[in-house]
Amino acid sequence: MTFNDRLATTVSQKNSLLCVGLDPDLRRLPQHLQQEPNAILLFCKEIIAATAASAAAFKINFAFFEAEGSAGWSMLEQLAAELPADVIKIADAKRADIGNTSERYAHAILDRLDFDAITVNPYLGRDAVEPFLQWPARGAFVLCRTSNPGSGDFQQLQSQGQPLYQTVADRVMSWNKNGNCGLVVGATDASDLARIREISPTLPLLIPGVGAQGGALEAAVRLGTDSEGGAALINSSRSIIYKSSGRDFVEAAAREAQTLCTRINEIRQAKLQTKS
Amino acid sequence: MTFNDRLATTVSQKNSLLCVGLDPDLRRLPQHLQQEPNAILLFCKEIIAATAASAAAFKINFAFFEAEGSAGWSMLEQLAAELPADVIKIADAKRADIGNTSERYAHAILDRLDFDAITVNPYLGRDAVEPFLQWPARGAFVLCRTSNPGSGDFQQLQSQGQPLYQTVADRVMSWNKNGNCGLVVGATDASDLARIREISPTLPLLIPGVGAQGGALEAAVRLGTDSEGGAALINSSRSIIYKSSGRDFVEAAAREAQTLCTRINEIRQAKLQTKS
Repeated sequence: MTFNDRLATTVSQKNSLLCVGLDPDLRRLPQHLQQEPNAILLFCKEIIAATAASAAAFKINFAFFEAEGSAGWSMLEQLAAELPADVIKIADAKRADIGNTSERYAHAILDRLDFDAITVNPYLGRDAVEPFLQWPARGAFVLCRTSNPGSGDFQQLQSQGQPLYQTVADRVMSWNKNGNCGLVVGATDASDLARIREISPTLPLLIPGVGAQGGALEAAVRLGTDSEGGAALINSSRSIIYKSSGRDFVEAAAREAQTLCTRINEIRQAKLQTKS
Repeated sequence: MTFNDRLATTVSQKNSLLCVGLDPDLRRLPQHLQQEPNAILLFCKEIIAATAASAAAFKINFAFFEAEGSAGWSMLEQLAAELPADVIKIADAKRADIGNTSERYAHAILDRLDFDAITVNPYLGRDAVEPFLQWPARGAFVLCRTSNPGSGDFQQLQSQGQPLYQTVADRVMSWNKNGNCGLVVGATDASDLARIREISPTLPLLIPGVGAQGGALEAAVRLGTDSEGGAALINSSRSIIYKSSGRDFVEAAAREAQTLCTRINEIRQAKLQTKS
């Protein structure tokens, strides 16, 4: 089964588009956890257990583990090994380099750490992304239109009659030979999201920016899903994992994930009903 | 002292523009090392000892360490701690993400691992690069024109009357408020290199692609250096570290590094004499 088919199956079986983003910043963890050795690992395991019922995917942000050095990388290994089998495991690592180096990153993350997918950066071009696409069952979400303030610096530059991010979407469509390419598209600009969905009607979109980054949920779901209300993962990180900074963070995260999952499904239903 | 001033001082004191790139692929190490635990660390330490006299900088390719998992990251920590004090230590990690994530990568690599500089990817724009520029003594080499086959996919797209890579060079000039920005420019296309040097007369250029990637050394040195024959690091990785695959790899690497350093200095001298 290709990665994109597996994503569709998971979304259907779990009846969820929610991706829970794990950005475990030691300085923001609940007080009672901060003194523990392996605090970020403990925190992530609690969040995963609390939200797994509502999540189609988990996205692990590598920077927060690397910030803890080799101990952090070791926690990343333990975490990757313990993620539930019925969710999509995404390495949010934003890698890409010349071919022989990307091949080593692909080995490290998709093979050795056994993630299902990775986020990659398109700037170096096709041969820098290809090593991440070599196994059809493993996927790559290519950065297309990001949600940060400086995203327009280059992504919005007009070229060949369209902004760069649209050319990236075009190219990634052509790279999708193994059925395992997706795009990262921020939820912060609805019209850009709509345009990308038009260019790439079937590619899975990984959509951050809902919640703490301020993207509007309704637009993200309506415009980001495909015609069947699928092929999208709506990512929320900080608004779930830091919902409470007290001892009730587990229950608070569980409630927030469930609320988001339900709300997303309501918007999907409404979209499909409008269509039919 | 800013990073760029420190680079100039190092180049002057060591009378070298050579950057030795450490891409230690376990599968390519000399046979007698492959069975050792920590083989890639042992290999790198031998190469460093052999080439430090000729090198102004060492560039450590993170992918080859991550490919060994947490043990690899631990070797990276040991290696970073043992690099000579009189060289520039570059983390070739190609990072960049939204601000709060880039901030964690900057902490991991420039603070915790104590590298002098890091390679970063411009696609996300200014706020993704800024966290790497927060300490004037630490620098960032921003990918501009890379040397891989697919580098033209996006970097050569015409926009605002010039290819994207030139717009990147323009922007990085404006980001250089702390005197700590540089550019990564492949040696494979001489005219592109010349154009970038024109746009950014003083920014340090990190120039890979000499040696195994086929870039012409003479053009790289003539066109990549500034008007004083400095502000450039000429990187060679595989052509030095894999010069011999036998037990004489240390001597072979030492000779190759010395030969390259000398040849680079001859070209610099010739350029300065032509000018005067």
